[in-house]
Amino acid sequence: MSYDNENIFAKILRGELPCLKVYEDDQTLAFMDIMPQATGHTLVIPKSPATTIFDLNAAAAADLIVKVQLVAKAVKTAMNADGITLFQLNGESAGQTVPHMHFHVLPASIATARAHASEMADPKELESAAKLIRAQLKI
Amino acid sequence: MSYDNENIFAKILRGELPCLKVYEDDQTLAFMDIMPQATGHTLVIPKSPATTIFDLNAAAAADLIVKVQLVAKAVKTAMNADGITLFQLNGESAGQTVPHMHFHVLPASIATARAHASEMADPKELESAAKLIRAQLKI
Repeated sequence: MSYDNENIFAKILRGELPCLKVYEDDQTLAFMDIMPQATGHTLVIPKSPATTIFDLNAAAAADLIVKVQLVAKAVKTAMNADGITLFQLNGESAGQTVPHMHFHVLPASIATARAHASEMADPKELESAAKLIRAQLKI
Repeated sequence: MSYDNENIFAKILRGELPCLKVYEDDQTLAFMDIMPQATGHTLVIPKSPATTIFDLNAAAAADLIVKVQLVAKAVKTAMNADGITLFQLNGESAGQTVPHMHFHVLPASIATARAHASEMADPKELESAAKLIRAQLKI
């Protein structure tokens, strides 16, 4: 599908919508999922307009996974999580809800976590998790 | 955790156990999951001894995701799938069952797919899916 410039992550990237940012560099943004499947659920997105992983060139994909590693390590430490699930959904039929490609970093098992995009988090809980993760990412 | 040389993917990499291979290069192996959550469920693993994604250096992680993209595209085409779910489990508490890091390529939604590592596939069905995926990966 062609990229939709009005999707919510595009608006976040343009600063038209807020997010609880935990990491940013030239190519990447990471922020809290506002409908977390577990406390500390974080999203890592490329800044380039990619709908799915198939829209990223090799260099962009390579850069992104290194940032996913970095953020996932921070989430693991900040949340004192034993395990980290990474997942990345491509296409509506795979459950993708926002048409800008994103990696989910989930400090839990997907089998026992809440359903995807099901319930808004308490803003205070989100901010508290973001603060702990940011503290790990002062790099 | 320290790397366990006797895990089943280590044995597959050493040729001590069989697999239905769909892709291989110097750094990467991809093969059919024998307990698929959906038809065409494929695993992509690095050849280096990494228990979780945190054990891969940046270059190895970067190389791997590019191969995941390649294999995922082949799975999507071969299985005529609308959507592709990528997931990667780190730690037993995240549901990791084999202690050698692996990306799952699932031509389905994880929400409606079968449970992880729950049921052996019919060998004929596995081979049939492998054949279709290999046909896409003659590169």
